[in-house]
Amino acid sequence: GLSVKYKTGPGFDENNNSTDLQIRVTVTNVIDKRPLYNVLGIITGSIEPDRYVLVGHHHDTISRGTVEAQAGSVALDHLVAMFGQLLQLGYRPLRTIIFCSWDGGEQGSLGSSAWLQENFQLVSQRAVAYLNIGAMADGNFTLQAVASPLLQKLLYDAARQIQSPDNRYVSLYDLWADRPSSKLKLSDKPDEPKVLYSVGGAGDESNFYYRAGVPIAGIKATFDKEDLPAESYPLYHTAYDSVFAYENFIDPGFNFTKALTQMWGASILNLANSSIIPFQVSRYSEVLNYLIHRDLVPHQAEWGKHGVQIGDLVSAATRFSAAAASFERRPSLENDLYHSLLKQRIYNDQLMAVERVFIDTIALEQRPFVKHVLFGPSITDEASGTPFPVIQDSLHRISQGETTAWDDLMRGIEKITAKILMAAKLLEKSPQL
Amino acid sequence: GLSVKYKTGPGFDENNNSTDLQIRVTVTNVIDKRPLYNVLGIITGSIEPDRYVLVGHHHDTISRGTVEAQAGSVALDHLVAMFGQLLQLGYRPLRTIIFCSWDGGEQGSLGSSAWLQENFQLVSQRAVAYLNIGAMADGNFTLQAVASPLLQKLLYDAARQIQSPDNRYVSLYDLWADRPSSKLKLSDKPDEPKVLYSVGGAGDESNFYYRAGVPIAGIKATFDKEDLPAESYPLYHTAYDSVFAYENFIDPGFNFTKALTQMWGASILNLANSSIIPFQVSRYSEVLNYLIHRDLVPHQAEWGKHGVQIGDLVSAATRFSAAAASFERRPSLENDLYHSLLKQRIYNDQLMAVERVFIDTIALEQRPFVKHVLFGPSITDEASGTPFPVIQDSLHRISQGETTAWDDLMRGIEKITAKILMAAKLLEKSPQL
Repeated sequence: GLSVKYKTGPGFDENNNSTDLQIRVTVTNVIDKRPLYNVLGIITGSIEPDRYVLVGHHHDTISRGTVEAQAGSVALDHLVAMFGQLLQLGYRPLRTIIFCSWDGGEQGSLGSSAWLQENFQLVSQRAVAYLNIGAMADGNFTLQAVASPLLQKLLYDAARQIQSPDNRYVSLYDLWADRPSSKLKLSDKPDEPKVLYSVGGAGDESNFYYRAGVPIAGIKATFDKEDLPAESYPLYHTAYDSVFAYENFIDPGFNFTKALTQMWGASILNLANSSIIPFQVSRYSEVLNYLIHRDLVPHQAEWGKHGVQIGDLVSAATRFSAAAASFERRPSLENDLYHSLLKQRIYNDQLMAVERVFIDTIALEQRPFVKHVLFGPSITDEASGTPFPVIQDSLHRISQGETTAWDDLMRGIEKITAKILMAAKLLEKSPQL
Repeated sequence: GLSVKYKTGPGFDENNNSTDLQIRVTVTNVIDKRPLYNVLGIITGSIEPDRYVLVGHHHDTISRGTVEAQAGSVALDHLVAMFGQLLQLGYRPLRTIIFCSWDGGEQGSLGSSAWLQENFQLVSQRAVAYLNIGAMADGNFTLQAVASPLLQKLLYDAARQIQSPDNRYVSLYDLWADRPSSKLKLSDKPDEPKVLYSVGGAGDESNFYYRAGVPIAGIKATFDKEDLPAESYPLYHTAYDSVFAYENFIDPGFNFTKALTQMWGASILNLANSSIIPFQVSRYSEVLNYLIHRDLVPHQAEWGKHGVQIGDLVSAATRFSAAAASFERRPSLENDLYHSLLKQRIYNDQLMAVERVFIDTIALEQRPFVKHVLFGPSITDEASGTPFPVIQDSLHRISQGETTAWDDLMRGIEKITAKILMAAKLLEKSPQL
C-alpha cells in the first residue's frame, strides 16, 4: 500500500457492533444468459493420437485484465503460432496437443468446467497432463509454481533450458532456485525451487486435477512476498490492471512473459514427444511421505486416544515409495522398453494411472466436486489448497465440537490408505491380486 | 411339480386376512464371523501382461449344491488344468488370464465383491472381460446365456466350434439356435440364439458389469421353459441338488457340462489371443436401438405431455450406430493395424472403453451399486435384470403416484443420452472436442 493514512469509515465500535451508520447500496446488476465461447486448437499426434497434452488458459477478463488474463492470451497465441510453424515445416508431435482458450474463467471456470463434463471420459482416459497458463507475471522477482508432484521435474527441466531474464543468473531455474517467493516450507527439499502441490478450487486447472485426476502444472513470475506480504498482486481484478502497469511495473520489457512462454513451449514439447512420459513418480512418493510426517504424524498420540490410527497409512506410503523406486529403475534395466512402442505404451499407462488413482468419486460427501484425496481446496478458504482435504475437513469439524467427525477422520484415513496401496499396485510389475 | 394335491395350510381367508392360526418359529441361526477364501490363478500374458481376461466361479454351495455350484468348480478345475498343460508345452497367452474361484457367492457374492473393491482401479483399467461360470447345466434341452452385447458374438463363435451333445445337430450353436429356451422376444434377431443382456444383481458377474463396466458373459444348459414354466430348476438351493440328480436327470453322461467347458475354453482363448479384442460394437448399437424402440418410443406421446422428450436419445443412438459401423470397418481399411502392436492397442483401448462409458458413479441415488445406465437389476426384483434401470426406477415411482419422478425420468434420459454420445465419441477417429 501507499504510505498515506487510509480512511475507511467509522467501522465497528469497541464491542464489535456496528455504529448507527446507514448504507444505501444501489445494485444495477442484470441477470442475463450469455453464450460462452471456448476456442480449441488441436494438433493430432502422429504416433499416439489418443494421448492428449492439454494447454489451457481463460481468455475472459474482468475490466482490462492485462495480468489476468490478456498476457496469457498473448502467450497462448504465440505458442499456437510456433507449433503451427513447426507443423508447416513437417514437424508433428508424437502425441496430440490440444490448445484450449476458455471462456467464463471469471464466472467460476465455467468454460473449462462445462467442456470437461462434456468430454469427461475422453479426458479421463486420454489426457496426459493439463498445463494451465494463468497470469504470466504479476511481478518480476521470481517464479511461483503449482503442480502435481508428478510434474515438478517437468517444470525444473524446462526452466533449466530457458535463459534467465535477469543476467545475474544463467538459467530461469537458477533464478527461481535462488529467490524463494516466500519463506513457507513446502517440501523436504529446501534447496530446490518451491512448488505448491495443492491449488485452490477456483482455477481452470482445479477441474482437471481434482475431478479427473489429470496432473496439472501452472507457473508465473511474481513479486517478493517477504517484501510485499500480499496474497495477490494489488491491481488484481481492478481497472488498474492495465497494459501501462504491465509494461512499466509488472514486467518491463516483457522479459519474464517471454521467458515463461518459452518455458511452456519446452514443457509441451517434452510431454508430447518423450517416448516415456516425463512424470516422476518417485517425487510423488517423496512428497506424500513428507506431508504425512509433517501434517499427520505429530497428531498420532492425540488421535490414538480417539481410536484413529495412522500406522497403515504410513506403511502404505512406504510401499508406494518402494514401488515407485522399482518402477523408475525399469527403463535402465529393460532394454526392450526402448525398442517397443507397445512396451512404452504399457509403461506410460502405468504412469498415467497414478494421479487418477487418488480420485475418489465420493471423497467428501459435503463437497462433491472435491474428489482428489491427497490435494484439494481448503474447507475454510475455497481459493487456497490443502493437502489431505478429506482429513482437514474432519479436523475442521472436530475443532468445531462435532465429535462424530472422529469417525469420518478414521474413514478418511482408511480411504487415503487404500488409494496409496492401489497406487503402489498399479506400479508393481506383478501386483498381488 | 408332481401331480399330487399340495396342502400348505389354511392360509388367508376370503378378505385376505390371516386366520387365527399361530406359528411358533424357533430360529437356531448363529451370527458368526468367518473368513472367506478366494482362490486366484494367474497366467501372465506374454505381450499384454496388463490386460486381464477374468474367469470366475463361486465355489461355495448351499447344502450339496451339485448344480449350484460344484459342476462349475469341476469345469473351472478342468480349464485351469488345460491351460496349465498348454503352459508346460510352451504356450503362453498374449494377455493375462486370471482364474477366480470365489467364496461367499451365496452370501451375496461377497468374495468377488470384496476382491473387486480391493482391486477396483486395476480391474477398471485392465480387465478385458469377465466370464462367469455359474451353473453348467440345470437341464439338457438348450442353452441360456447372459452377456453384454459386446460379447454376444464371442459366445456364438465359441458355440460354433463345439460339437453338439445331441447328434441331431452339428454344433452347439445349431442346437442353441433351434431350441429357444422361452418364447420371450429379447432382440431384433429372432433367428439367432437368445442372449439376455441384463442380468440380475445377485451374481458375481453383476459386480463386474454394473459397478466396473467390464463386459460379462455367462452360459448354461437348461430345460425347456415352455414345458416347465419355472424361473429356476426346482432343486435349486435344496438338499436334492445332488450328484445323483445331476447324473440321472440334469445332465446324463455330463454331455452338456463337457460341451460348455469346451466352449469356455474356446472363449478364453479367443479373448486372450486375438490381436483385436473380439468385441462387436455394432451389436451393442443394434441392441441399444432395438431396446429404445421397444421400451421407450411407444411412450413418446404420453411422456411428451409431461415435458419428457426422447428425440435427443434417439439421435444419439443413431450417431453411436454410425460410429460403431465406421469403427468396425477400420481393420479392413487400415493395413497397418495388423503390423503395429501399438495401433492394435490403441484400437483395443477404444473397444474396452465402450462398456465403461455406460458407468455413471451416481446413476441412481437410491441404489448406489447400480452404476450402469443401460442394464441393471430391476427395482421390483433385484434378482432379475432390466434395460434402462435409470428409466425404469422413475417409471416405477411414477406408477406409485410420485409426480416428482417425472423430473428424474427426464434427467435419467438426459444422462443416458450423454453416455451414448460419449460412446460414439470414443469410437470416432477424430472426435469433435
